[in-house]
Amino acid sequence: MDSLKNDSLIRALLRQPTRRTPVWMMRQAGRHLPEYRALRAHAGDFMSLCSHPEWACEVTLQPLQRYDLDAAILFSDILTIPDAMGLGLYFVEGEGPKFRKPLRCAKDVESLQVLDTAKDLTYVTDAVTLIRRELNGSVPLIGFSGSPWTLATYMIEGAASRDFARTKSWLYEQPELLHQLLDILTASVINYLNAQILSGAQVIQIFDTWGGALSDAAYYEFSLDYMQKVVSSLIPVNEGREVPVILFTKGGGMWLDALAKTGCHALGLDWTVNLGDARRRVGSKVALQGNMDPAVLRAGPAAIEPEVRRILRSFGDGSGHVFNLGHGITPDVDPKHAAFFVDTVHRLSNTG
Amino acid sequence: MDSLKNDSLIRALLRQPTRRTPVWMMRQAGRHLPEYRALRAHAGDFMSLCSHPEWACEVTLQPLQRYDLDAAILFSDILTIPDAMGLGLYFVEGEGPKFRKPLRCAKDVESLQVLDTAKDLTYVTDAVTLIRRELNGSVPLIGFSGSPWTLATYMIEGAASRDFARTKSWLYEQPELLHQLLDILTASVINYLNAQILSGAQVIQIFDTWGGALSDAAYYEFSLDYMQKVVSSLIPVNEGREVPVILFTKGGGMWLDALAKTGCHALGLDWTVNLGDARRRVGSKVALQGNMDPAVLRAGPAAIEPEVRRILRSFGDGSGHVFNLGHGITPDVDPKHAAFFVDTVHRLSNTG
Repeated sequence: MDSLKNDSLIRALLRQPTRRTPVWMMRQAGRHLPEYRALRAHAGDFMSLCSHPEWACEVTLQPLQRYDLDAAILFSDILTIPDAMGLGLYFVEGEGPKFRKPLRCAKDVESLQVLDTAKDLTYVTDAVTLIRRELNGSVPLIGFSGSPWTLATYMIEGAASRDFARTKSWLYEQPELLHQLLDILTASVINYLNAQILSGAQVIQIFDTWGGALSDAAYYEFSLDYMQKVVSSLIPVNEGREVPVILFTKGGGMWLDALAKTGCHALGLDWTVNLGDARRRVGSKVALQGNMDPAVLRAGPAAIEPEVRRILRSFGDGSGHVFNLGHGITPDVDPKHAAFFVDTVHRLSNTG
Repeated sequence: MDSLKNDSLIRALLRQPTRRTPVWMMRQAGRHLPEYRALRAHAGDFMSLCSHPEWACEVTLQPLQRYDLDAAILFSDILTIPDAMGLGLYFVEGEGPKFRKPLRCAKDVESLQVLDTAKDLTYVTDAVTLIRRELNGSVPLIGFSGSPWTLATYMIEGAASRDFARTKSWLYEQPELLHQLLDILTASVINYLNAQILSGAQVIQIFDTWGGALSDAAYYEFSLDYMQKVVSSLIPVNEGREVPVILFTKGGGMWLDALAKTGCHALGLDWTVNLGDARRRVGSKVALQGNMDPAVLRAGPAAIEPEVRRILRSFGDGSGHVFNLGHGITPDVDPKHAAFFVDTVHRLSNTG
């Protein structure tokens, strides 16, 4: 077993005691950092950064050089899977991701192959290997994927969407076709995440960014069930250590009880959830990760400190809390504020 | 007391028995109707429709001529209040509402006056009076307002927003200034809704469209507390009949318990909430309104009928359910589907 100098993230995810609450930030590597923007300008575009392991490694490590973080998270994009499936991912500045060949009909789904990461996404596993070597046991590396449902929305819409009109037309008019797509994506996500684990990812997070767009009944059928299949098919132990799995459904506060029963180790929470309430509902089953509104980071230390204190108190004493934002850090945040946030979590949670 | 031929909406909101579940649709009057689009083209722009009582009345009644609805809702916009306060509301096709003079600093807030509906928004109360006359006791008329928080977001952002960056900067950096604005808006909403009641609105709905963007703690402080003040200041009985109040926080499923304690009569629910769960949490205090995903209406009868059945079953037997969508009907819905939806709610809930 590889030694890990700071294992507080993994301990907290397994609800074991830690000296202080571990903290990382969704999108900690990225646009809010000037050194990221410089490398991005040099690389030319976002996907070049993702697809060159040396650059992906450099970007992954950038926030760790500034902040006292308890984890690194692979720099990549949730849409690498559909891109590898041939949908042609590209980015338009200010408009988010788009696909040249979105799915439009049954034939498009039938032509899809389950992802073979070892063939199609070696740039990701190579990046994981490289990052682990560079981290040299300092903090654990988090690997990730989009949830099958969230990937399906992008593949069907072809772009970001407000109301997911096309995807929901499939859902309500051709549910078998959507299930067929979700089956392919589920097998692909399992393949992808297990390849990340075997390359060295020590924690896995599944981003169900758009699960919250579904009705209660549809959420169980079209998102949760597939995430459960993913969770139950992941390699549970690697390098002699358990590989904790975090599920994060943005807007999923209503469904925490069901999420906690999937076999995952922790739930990511957005800022609408009260941590104390969530813990009363599911705290004996899983750890909780979250949940400060990223908007607080814009406001600076005078706002950050009371909000960190409030969230720590709402979780209360005992193990099983990983501090994080409730969604990704926004590009306009001053890195000094992010540094203050990380240090404040550590200072206020330090039990000696 | 004015006789009301169909009082099932009011009875259900007061948790009294009804022969069948009453139904209406948020945004039932509007863009999905060809006769609306024709009148809008004739009128020139959206605000002209709102500000001419005859047109507002005609648009309000249009869906009642097509569908067997159990309520009419005043055709207007939640931004009439800030417009009357001098912010200069205008609409850009495809971009939603904007303000010429959004709030930028303390001085902008200090210059605001509490709305005097009788002086500043007579076109709304005139429309209410006219609609009541035209309805002639067939179904009740719902009046409405945006919540103070939701109005504040538009006034500070100056337009629709994804992350409410400016508003949240006020919230976390100048909370006193935001409270000052919310006080003015709360007094204005109370004035506005009581004027609607006195002109003939028989039910009130408060749209807290953006409450779900707030953190748990901020929601209580910046949205819920102000809605509670509004609820407690509304005229409780008019024309010898109770005036039920519906609170609708989109994305507010986490906060139903607190919402139910405000003194309101009913909670509007978006489609992420399970009606049965909601009823177990708050059903003895308030009625529940909702909550079909409007996307189901795009899909047609084969999808609508099972979804209506599922939602009726999830509420279960007994009084206190008003069927509705979980958000506004979308402009691309075929009116035939909407008609089928309304009839299906009535047919499947008919207890003889």
